[in-house]
Amino acid sequence: MKQTNDEFDKFHRKPLQVKAAQELLSVYGKPGHTEQISLQDSHGRYLSEEIQATHPFPRFRRSGMDGYAVRSEDTAVCSSDHMVWLDVIDEIPCGSVSDKIITAGTTARIMTGAEVPEGADAVVMLEMTEHREYEGRTQMGLKRMIESGKNITPIGFEVKEGEVLLRPGRRIHAGEISVLASFGVHQVSVYQKPRIAIFSTGSELLNVDEPLQPGKIRNSNTYMLASQVREAGGEPFILDAVMDDLPLAKAKVEQALQEYDAVVTSGGVSVGDYDIMGDFVRSDSVEMLYNKIAMRPGSVTTAAAKNGKLLFALSGNPGACFVGFELFVRPFIQRMLGSGKPYLTEWTALLDQDYTKVNAFTRYVRGRLEARDGMLYAIPAKVDESSVMVTIKDSDCLIVIPPAKNVTPAGEKVKVLLLKGNTL
Amino acid sequence: MKQTNDEFDKFHRKPLQVKAAQELLSVYGKPGHTEQISLQDSHGRYLSEEIQATHPFPRFRRSGMDGYAVRSEDTAVCSSDHMVWLDVIDEIPCGSVSDKIITAGTTARIMTGAEVPEGADAVVMLEMTEHREYEGRTQMGLKRMIESGKNITPIGFEVKEGEVLLRPGRRIHAGEISVLASFGVHQVSVYQKPRIAIFSTGSELLNVDEPLQPGKIRNSNTYMLASQVREAGGEPFILDAVMDDLPLAKAKVEQALQEYDAVVTSGGVSVGDYDIMGDFVRSDSVEMLYNKIAMRPGSVTTAAAKNGKLLFALSGNPGACFVGFELFVRPFIQRMLGSGKPYLTEWTALLDQDYTKVNAFTRYVRGRLEARDGMLYAIPAKVDESSVMVTIKDSDCLIVIPPAKNVTPAGEKVKVLLLKGNTL
Repeated sequence: MKQTNDEFDKFHRKPLQVKAAQELLSVYGKPGHTEQISLQDSHGRYLSEEIQATHPFPRFRRSGMDGYAVRSEDTAVCSSDHMVWLDVIDEIPCGSVSDKIITAGTTARIMTGAEVPEGADAVVMLEMTEHREYEGRTQMGLKRMIESGKNITPIGFEVKEGEVLLRPGRRIHAGEISVLASFGVHQVSVYQKPRIAIFSTGSELLNVDEPLQPGKIRNSNTYMLASQVREAGGEPFILDAVMDDLPLAKAKVEQALQEYDAVVTSGGVSVGDYDIMGDFVRSDSVEMLYNKIAMRPGSVTTAAAKNGKLLFALSGNPGACFVGFELFVRPFIQRMLGSGKPYLTEWTALLDQDYTKVNAFTRYVRGRLEARDGMLYAIPAKVDESSVMVTIKDSDCLIVIPPAKNVTPAGEKVKVLLLKGNTL
Repeated sequence: MKQTNDEFDKFHRKPLQVKAAQELLSVYGKPGHTEQISLQDSHGRYLSEEIQATHPFPRFRRSGMDGYAVRSEDTAVCSSDHMVWLDVIDEIPCGSVSDKIITAGTTARIMTGAEVPEGADAVVMLEMTEHREYEGRTQMGLKRMIESGKNITPIGFEVKEGEVLLRPGRRIHAGEISVLASFGVHQVSVYQKPRIAIFSTGSELLNVDEPLQPGKIRNSNTYMLASQVREAGGEPFILDAVMDDLPLAKAKVEQALQEYDAVVTSGGVSVGDYDIMGDFVRSDSVEMLYNKIAMRPGSVTTAAAKNGKLLFALSGNPGACFVGFELFVRPFIQRMLGSGKPYLTEWTALLDQDYTKVNAFTRYVRGRLEARDGMLYAIPAKVDESSVMVTIKDSDCLIVIPPAKNVTPAGEKVKVLLLKGNTL
């Protein structure tokens, strides 16, 4: 029996390298629409504007101690044998501004964070001082010489006026929020969350709340993908499963490509007769970008484009589906959020134990990182079939094992890609 | 002028080591109330129940390939010179169960993920096979010997029935969701988010949306703390700032201690006259646990207890406030979420450059981690005054520099604590 052209296409896909596929995709996913949200709601969102310092920080000479503001020259004669007494002419709590000028022989009580009064050029800490009432005046006594500038943070020490503090695409964590608050940005401009439609294919799939049936399995990939979309900064929309029916699938996916920023499917991309997504991307409905990647797991990972939107057709195997998302879908979402670093952070680590599988394709092995004594070790998960779902939860990295004919030995330097939103 | 007892207490605080303070706090914060939420909403939450496998996974002998289910013994005589032809007696899509038994000379077309029919003990991949119609029968031809078990995932290969898959306190990411979905857990029992009240103290503080005023600064710590609370798994409640008024502060904090799981304040804990939180914890309103920690920044970090609830009085300096939260408040929130690892992940790294500051106390220096060539380097942030807020955003770890009289040299092994929710 002669193979048809279509079958030939199915079996003889041209594998792309991961980097080449990422490159192909990189023209899609421009930074998207923006919205204004309150600072309190901005945790975890992505900034869409550049934040410049509207004033130096600190804006005034700030006391770094609770103590006394002094003229350092007044303390020049201090020593353990010689106490200098200064008249206390003011008391400056935080948030108040003194209308006094510190002149020779005078000082002012000052709190941490308060504005240092004119005339003073140093602050001496409270613990170093003594106090007395003398001839009706309150005095502070000091036995130690204080150098000019001591315990005063100069204007602009942390930030100069006009300095760029945060750039668009920056994920907002505690440190960013501290900056935004300090410069009065109470309404923050952020990118809207990319809206990602998720389908699973296959009539073998039961809903999570359905009772088990012979031969069927529960649909787990859509929920897993939704979690990955959230972690990547997007908003997931789980749509009704696409059954094994090409016209129906086609209609649903095409509609979703209009309504959402991207569509992610799992399953239906291998060479079987029922592999509907494979058939779909070969139809003229979309422009196929690739339907084979030189990687394990997930060599059947497929992508197509239509009107600038992307369809990611990931493998139905949980492990392959997970990896396919992290390598291809996550960067798309990150680009829509303006990220300058859309790909998983890549480090070099030492392989903790022999990796015995040989492979013609690059392997993305789920694993864990451990730092011991300044060295970084990558520990492959024990079971690593593409279908093995239980190891995903215990992995915090993907270990990249290049094509190898022999065992990759313990101690070998390997690339690792950080997972779980680890931002190191 | 003689110091009062109160002033003596202020100045002569007994510093606790960080570990000792964490130990003191560790009796507070038991795992809290639970709630049921839908699987789709569970991303980022903390499981409050143990999840066991209610069935083996896979539940049936699963085909790992699109191809044909065969009896391996039928293929024993296959060779490149000798093709064996088998009668195709069924076609088994995913989710269907065959009612045929594979007997000598027969085979069934089978899809990836489908249940392998009785009688067959291996699956041969489609690409290895040929096909013909022969005397009215559909036949599959094979030239290669297939070993028993090939391309079949045995029952229970990934998970045995009864195996504990997830324990309480586990943070739910994509991998956990995949497990929950696979075992039909569509309603998930999670810990309620600990409710954390946040106050700032100090009349020098402007609201973020107020215009600047001389001597005053914008309140940034409460927003930063709210973000840290979210990152740690809690729910922040920003309450009205406590002005410099002891009875008012006392009333507000006492009420918050009743209504929330913990209260976090920033500012008002140093030795100044206006340091209201310091005064408050020395009053008999609460039981003071400590008011000095042998660390920089944040040596004034204070904690008190009342009726099993905790008051964390953190420094008003942004850097010290940030560190105080990560070392003391975060573990409390994590314990309420059932976490078995409440503290920041601790690694050992190599100091990337000399750290020149000397200190009597342990320093928690903000910094960045970088892996190069299998070695892990910790790079201290350039500016590291406790008040310097801008470096928080660029830090992904705290570098622990023990008390040192001299420079800590580049290449020295240092402990690092991972920040930003990095879960490595």
